[in-house]
Amino acid sequence: MSDSLSRLKTRMAQINCLGQATSVLSWDQQTYMPSGGAASRAEQIATLSQIAHERFTATETGDLLAQAEAETQGMDPDSDTVRMLQNIRRKYDRETKLPADLVIELARHSSLAQEIWQQARKDNAFAAFLPALEKMFALIREAAQHLGYQEHIYDPLIDLHETGMTQARVAAMFNELKPELIALTRAIAESSHKADDSPLHGDFPVAKQAELTLKFVQALGYSLERGRQDIAPHPFCTHFSRDDVRITTRFDPTFLPMAVYASLHEAGHALYEQGSPPEYEGTALAGGTSLGVHESQSRLWENLVGRSREFCVWAYPQLQAAFPSALGGVSLDAYYRAINRVEPSLIRVEADEVTYNLHILLRFELECDLLTGSLAVADLPAAWNAKMQEYLGVTPPTDADGVLQDVHWSGGLIGYFPTYSIGNLLSGQLWQTIRTALPDLNAQMERGEFAPLLDWLRRNVHGYGSKYLPNELTVKATGAPLSSKPYLAYLKAKFNALYGL
Amino acid sequence: MSDSLSRLKTRMAQINCLGQATSVLSWDQQTYMPSGGAASRAEQIATLSQIAHERFTATETGDLLAQAEAETQGMDPDSDTVRMLQNIRRKYDRETKLPADLVIELARHSSLAQEIWQQARKDNAFAAFLPALEKMFALIREAAQHLGYQEHIYDPLIDLHETGMTQARVAAMFNELKPELIALTRAIAESSHKADDSPLHGDFPVAKQAELTLKFVQALGYSLERGRQDIAPHPFCTHFSRDDVRITTRFDPTFLPMAVYASLHEAGHALYEQGSPPEYEGTALAGGTSLGVHESQSRLWENLVGRSREFCVWAYPQLQAAFPSALGGVSLDAYYRAINRVEPSLIRVEADEVTYNLHILLRFELECDLLTGSLAVADLPAAWNAKMQEYLGVTPPTDADGVLQDVHWSGGLIGYFPTYSIGNLLSGQLWQTIRTALPDLNAQMERGEFAPLLDWLRRNVHGYGSKYLPNELTVKATGAPLSSKPYLAYLKAKFNALYGL
Repeated sequence: MSDSLSRLKTRMAQINCLGQATSVLSWDQQTYMPSGGAASRAEQIATLSQIAHERFTATETGDLLAQAEAETQGMDPDSDTVRMLQNIRRKYDRETKLPADLVIELARHSSLAQEIWQQARKDNAFAAFLPALEKMFALIREAAQHLGYQEHIYDPLIDLHETGMTQARVAAMFNELKPELIALTRAIAESSHKADDSPLHGDFPVAKQAELTLKFVQALGYSLERGRQDIAPHPFCTHFSRDDVRITTRFDPTFLPMAVYASLHEAGHALYEQGSPPEYEGTALAGGTSLGVHESQSRLWENLVGRSREFCVWAYPQLQAAFPSALGGVSLDAYYRAINRVEPSLIRVEADEVTYNLHILLRFELECDLLTGSLAVADLPAAWNAKMQEYLGVTPPTDADGVLQDVHWSGGLIGYFPTYSIGNLLSGQLWQTIRTALPDLNAQMERGEFAPLLDWLRRNVHGYGSKYLPNELTVKATGAPLSSKPYLAYLKAKFNALYGL
Repeated sequence: MSDSLSRLKTRMAQINCLGQATSVLSWDQQTYMPSGGAASRAEQIATLSQIAHERFTATETGDLLAQAEAETQGMDPDSDTVRMLQNIRRKYDRETKLPADLVIELARHSSLAQEIWQQARKDNAFAAFLPALEKMFALIREAAQHLGYQEHIYDPLIDLHETGMTQARVAAMFNELKPELIALTRAIAESSHKADDSPLHGDFPVAKQAELTLKFVQALGYSLERGRQDIAPHPFCTHFSRDDVRITTRFDPTFLPMAVYASLHEAGHALYEQGSPPEYEGTALAGGTSLGVHESQSRLWENLVGRSREFCVWAYPQLQAAFPSALGGVSLDAYYRAINRVEPSLIRVEADEVTYNLHILLRFELECDLLTGSLAVADLPAAWNAKMQEYLGVTPPTDADGVLQDVHWSGGLIGYFPTYSIGNLLSGQLWQTIRTALPDLNAQMERGEFAPLLDWLRRNVHGYGSKYLPNELTVKATGAPLSSKPYLAYLKAKFNALYGL
């Protein structure tokens, strides 16, 4: 290895450690930190972010990178080294555009705004969150200007989370999805089959839920020697290395699916990170390649596996045994129908597979309007409620059930939501490929055998780390670029059968 | 404020944040981290420590410090600014003596060795820990050489934890304590009063213990808005600011005192940190001034308060109500005698007040011998057991109950144990002063009113942060330098009465 390449790798490993430490601070903030710790935690996170940013954007990094690039001229363009240098280059060019002061301010404000949001959601007080949210959008607009764009201020923001994606491509994706989803939702509403989710409401002691969700995620292949599950107001997955990948969930003692499907979802993310190649650890090739591909993993395990009839054949008897008073008299089919009930609702993370992407469409449009300035942040609750009525036919009774439901904006994650829909589409496309590759998949899932599925994902998705860009990985794994067709076909087949359409 | 002083303060605040972040990583490692995370956690902690050390020992820090010192010439020597600069100077001179490589290696090895120790203790396998411990003593010896000393290799090590203390002064302190403690222990052994601790063994459900210990520490004044209690194999207190001060404990479902007194002990540490002045936050004046003074706070609350008859008058009815099957038939006096039973035993953290300092004496002597090389690390278990027999008349049946019981050495804390005895002596000296200052203290404790006591400590100890050196603070708070007399007088009065001597 050339000296500059070796020095660059050492430097990147150190910067990586700072990022991992920041993630530990953030995990702690969302799980165990006492409220009094918020102000100093914001300073700590800001300091680590500042140092990481300074080191990464320093001239020395740029010089080492340029030297390493020159020295690897002519090397196999698909080699790990060349790909790694490309990833560093992309990030370096991006981050050197952002002034250090803005990076510090964004980190500090994200930490504080998340605390404010948490309290505001509790108090159902959007006004208490408004100043922090206004400041956040102002800071993000400033960041977008520095990053630069040709067509839309949204472009440099979504590119941070999903390299190569643009506002126009997202808008086109939703144009394709929207009429189909609305048609399916209407057909279901007009069908004579009425799904009943009352079996999911009842007495579900939290300790038992915790025990079973842990059992389920381990059955999928999630290693508790390299992970753990905790409670957080907004479930998330985070990692501090491939060997310390943590998930969180939340429990509702009277509503079963919240914890079960949050756990499966976050475990999907965690399996991706735990499957990152050990030899990539500490380099720019480690971990998932984008949020969209990450979401394809979480949605695949949550929905295409977790809400399948085959999964229920394995899991439901265990749930029934754990919650005899609530589920003793409920058949497998009744449970399967209940967890797949389609019903326009208020909360994104609880939305069914058919209506989910309409929640994302709403957020995407609002983000665009807020960023271009055609919508003022103060008018956001009204705009939110109007779009909820327009797309889903429901109006949130409180802001806590509406505009305050998501953590993302308070954390500066703007241009992030569309990656959820990208993930849904990709999960459908992967599933189509997997069903051909694993003809016995249905029988395996009915027996609780998830190793063949995980093995396929390890070989075709996880094992690449972030070596390939999302579009490249999609073609590698499925043979075709991202399309909405497989996902829509999956939805139609499943819900036509469920609702007798 | 001069420009260099202001820049120095900003620089120190940033370095402080790195230290706080490292403490979060360490807290997580000891409470929630999955075992797989150990290797990457060691790297993360090493990286943060390295960056903090580099920044603190950089020429720029030295230059700013020298400029600030020059600019504050003639300022009140007792002002916060002058004291702050003195603290930075002491630390700067100390740390610039240590090579960066050694600092990194120590941080990395501490993290790994703690993991190895935890497993070795579990497996009762000293041999598995031996290589890590040998390496640790080698590294610490190297550090001591760099720090430099006149008389004893122990001097620069204890000075890290207790500024101004020396091996000779510690040896002198133990020479004074040893005969008195042995005489008291013998008199108790020969007395006709036999204490019975059987009431403390029984059925004590952990959930109830957790609830009550939290209630007790809150009654002392520990704020859960600025703290929390978790479980760790070796109880500790850590802080990430004065507003996020955390304690840990461990629960034994069949033995009550472990959790109760560990909680009171760690809460004593936590009260000191929560009482640090807000205006000192992020500066070299924040937090406790030394480990010995820290220990005076933990021991004061654990023993002089927690094991007093007055505290029992308040706390015991609550314990009785929580554990009716175990304590229903046990009188207040029987409980008071049980928790104050004097009995030479194996485990330091469970030792009674009379024999506790003999456990420290043993560790102090072994550390001296290991550092001077008159004892090989491989021979440590035998030496430990021989001294246990000599001072306490007991021999550990396993190394897990002997040489493997403490976390300290695995974490590089060598020259640290004597601060426990310093803390005991100071707690007795403070108590003597407090009893004069607060004539109603006994009645207040019987009613569970700890605010007057906490208020006295806030004004006379906590509120100084680390502005004064341990010996200065001792004189300020008690009117005299540290002496063993008040503590020995306290022990004799209490245990003469308990044992009818």
